[in-house]
This record gives sequence, C-alpha cells and structure tokens, in this order.
Amino acid sequence: MAAKKRLSILISNDDGIDAPGIDRLVREMRRVGDVTVVAPHQQQSAVGHAITMNRPLRVREYTKNGAFFGYAVEGTPADCVKLAVRALLKRKPDLLISGVNHGSNTAISVIYSGTVSAATEGTILGIPSIAVSLTTYKPADFTYAARFARRLARQVIRHGLPLGTLLNVNVPPLPEARIKGIRITRQGKAIWNDTFDVRRDPANKEYFWLTGGLENVDKDLAFDEAAVRAGYVSVTPIQYDLTNEEMVDSMQSWNLTTKKQ
Amino acid sequence: MAAKKRLSILISNDDGIDAPGIDRLVREMRRVGDVTVVAPHQQQSAVGHAITMNRPLRVREYTKNGAFFGYAVEGTPADCVKLAVRALLKRKPDLLISGVNHGSNTAISVIYSGTVSAATEGTILGIPSIAVSLTTYKPADFTYAARFARRLARQVIRHGLPLGTLLNVNVPPLPEARIKGIRITRQGKAIWNDTFDVRRDPANKEYFWLTGGLENVDKDLAFDEAAVRAGYVSVTPIQYDLTNEEMVDSMQSWNLTTKKQ
Repeated sequence: MAAKKRLSILISNDDGIDAPGIDRLVREMRRVGDVTVVAPHQQQSAVGHAITMNRPLRVREYTKNGAFFGYAVEGTPADCVKLAVRALLKRKPDLLISGVNHGSNTAISVIYSGTVSAATEGTILGIPSIAVSLTTYKPADFTYAARFARRLARQVIRHGLPLGTLLNVNVPPLPEARIKGIRITRQGKAIWNDTFDVRRDPANKEYFWLTGGLENVDKDLAFDEAAVRAGYVSVTPIQYDLTNEEMVDSMQSWNLTTKKQ
Repeated sequence: MAAKKRLSILISNDDGIDAPGIDRLVREMRRVGDVTVVAPHQQQSAVGHAITMNRPLRVREYTKNGAFFGYAVEGTPADCVKLAVRALLKRKPDLLISGVNHGSNTAISVIYSGTVSAATEGTILGIPSIAVSLTTYKPADFTYAARFARRLARQVIRHGLPLGTLLNVNVPPLPEARIKGIRITRQGKAIWNDTFDVRRDPANKEYFWLTGGLENVDKDLAFDEAAVRAGYVSVTPIQYDLTNEEMVDSMQSWNLTTKKQ
C-alpha cells in the first residue's frame, strides 16, 4: 500500500485556542497531516461572519504543555483564517477544519455561527473546508467528533468539494456505539424563539439579556437539527451565494422607477 | 383616490444611529408610515450576523434636534432588530429597512455586512425587509437612495416577498438624472484580495491591519457590483437557506462510516 501524502491542515474555531474541542481535533488531525492552528485568543460565539477592519490584529504564539500549539489572534474566526492564509502560512493549506465547537450549529444558527464562518472564509479563499460542532452545551467528550472529522477530511480530499461549497457537520453527544449513522442533510427551518430577560442593574437601570431556544424544529431527518436529535451525525453541504434565483425572475415585472411618483 | 394605509416601519442600520444615511431614510419613510428607529449606538461595520449573548444589551432614547429620534442599542444590527421586535415594539412592523449604509454591500461583502444582517434578521422574524447601501465611502448625498427605498417599500408591500427572502439594494453615488435604471441582479462572484499591512507599534511589537479591495469583479450586469459600477441601482433578492441541494444528492455516495477505519 502506497504511503498517503501528508496533508497541510489549517485548524481554527470560535471557542478560543484554549478550548478542549480544538485540542482534541488537533491531536486527531496530526495523525494524518501537518497541522497549523490559528484561532481566537478568547471565546467568540455568535459573532457571525464578522471581520475586524477598524483596529489592528495582534497575534501571539500559544503554548500548551510546554510546546508550541498555535497562533492566538485577538480577532474573530474569520479574521484568523484570513490572517493565516494571507499572512502567516507559507502556502495555502490543503484543508481547513473549524471546531470542534462546543454546541450545535444547525438550522438558523448556521448564520450566527463563528465556527461556520471560519470554514466559509476558508472556502472563499479556495480551501476545502469543514465546520464541526458537538451538539451539547454540557461538558462533553470530543473524541468521536474529532475522529469523524478526520474520516470526513479524507473523503473531502478524495472527492473534492464544488467551488464555494463547504461542509457543516453536527455530531450528537453520544458514545460512538450509540451513533445511529451519518446523514447528508439540509439546513433546518427552525428559528430562535428569542426572548429578552428585562433586568435592573444595582443603579436600577434597565438592561436586556437575550435568551431562548430553537422553535419549530423540523421532524424530517432530511434536516440537520432533526437528524442530530435522532442520534445521527449530520453533514450539510452549504454555500454562500445567497441569490434567490426564482425571485430574480419574478421581480422583473415590478415597477421600480422613481421618476414619476 | 382612497387614502393609503400608513405603514408601520422599523428602521435600523450598521453605521450607527447618528449616521447621515439613516437620518435621510427616516425622513423619507415618515412620509408614508409610522417609523420606529432601533439602531446601534455606534458604528458596527463588518460585524456579519453577530448577536450578543454573553453580555446584556442596554438601550437609551436618542434625541436629534431636540426631538425623540429612536432607540440606541449597545449592540449589533441583528441585536437591534431582535430587541425591537421581541421587546420594544408593541406589534410586529409591516416592513423593515436597514440603511442607508455608507458603502457598498455587493458580492462577497454581503456575508460580512451588518446592514444586510439587520434585514436578514427581520426576514427571519417574518417581516418583509430591505437593506439599502450607497456605494461610496466618500461624503455623499443619500437623497436618491432614500427615495428609491420608499418606492421599493411600496412595491414590497404590494407584491410581498417569498418566505425567507429579502432585498439587498445598492445605489450608485450619482444624481438621480444620471442613474441609468434599475436592475434585478444576482450576488456577484468577486471576493476581497485581502492583504495585511504588517506594522510595528511604539514598543516595536508587530501588528496586522486588514486592507484590500474587491477582485475578479463580474463584467455581466446581471451581477450586483457590475450593475452599480455601470450606473444602475442593483436590487438582489437574497435568502439565508445555505443548503447546496445538488451536493446533498451527490454526497450520498460518500463513504463516511468511522466503524472500520
């Protein structure tokens, strides 16, 4: 059997460089490739696809157990990927993996997700990219999620990904023996039933705190959140061309001139 | 002629509540509806679809020329819309307009745009929503862009928008007489040729500053950036279901089991 070429792998996340999920992922991916970690210096959840333009980015070398682990960036996940590819790395990596995120990134959460934004940024820059999340907020074991990421990475290298497409993976917090299987899914239709806690500070001034959960979760296992709730690993191919093509056609008949109103 | 029903209109932006673009938009929209402004207290460009979960949001009443103008929120554009609809407003508005942004939101910039994220959030919450940008960073006159927004708002109310679809409008910085017309466009394929300025601070420590411009801009006027560069108002229907449907089909044949590796 021919030796497999070692991959050049960029790893980022949004939980921060010191999070357990990225540590497990790095250890797993080092088995198959040369890993560079460029991740936020602190937790960045729900930053969406934010990039930092109005202030500089600082980078420091981050050490774990006495050894160099990666680059910590005072910025967002998308900042990390841009900076890695455009300034820190000598050549474009073969693959980018973002995660393992602690918490799900399904349905509408995909658009708020820093984890997904790092993989989106990789895709924009022409790197096959994967976002991986473990769908629990409780203390959790990232072992299977990281191992699945490694398996999927091999398949991505083998099959390739279409231009502008990335994979959004959500793994249920179950031991491997209880995972029911893998499903290729669609982004779910569920949205957040946002509620705001209205509170008063010590000076009796009002403030608002966002809370809530997903509502109207699809039952159909063809969708991400339903699949993970049923015990499947969900793999959703997503892309960032947001055009609604049907609407481009149907809007041609609208009267939009401002000349004679 | 029957009196038109006055609309209930929510206005937000990402340049901040004191920006000239939102002021012009508010004055225009007050001609046809009851306007509520809920906007960031300061500039929020390139925040993507960020929402604030790890700290509280504070809101204050913002006064302009001695009169109440709107609510200033210490948060992102998406925070503003969530907070308006879920906590501040008595009933769901008939329409949301985000803008007028000072700077373009075309091509890949759509996914970094706070202006678009406010309109996306409105759409998620079931409100017909429009993002409007003036495509220049120089001092500019927002009059025509605001007037076009009013015209488009009427058409949106008349025609409706499909579930999950919003309109992303980019207006060239030209006097109305020089606007060539209106084009219904697609999100362009151009991306940023990000470069990082590597600089040294007074203590001789390195830092990075993001710079760059759009590259590979489409020539075809069917795309947003090309249309505005040619002097047209660009109206792009966009949506936030990111699923790549073709890829969902083609990935079914991938071997993703981790059992026997």
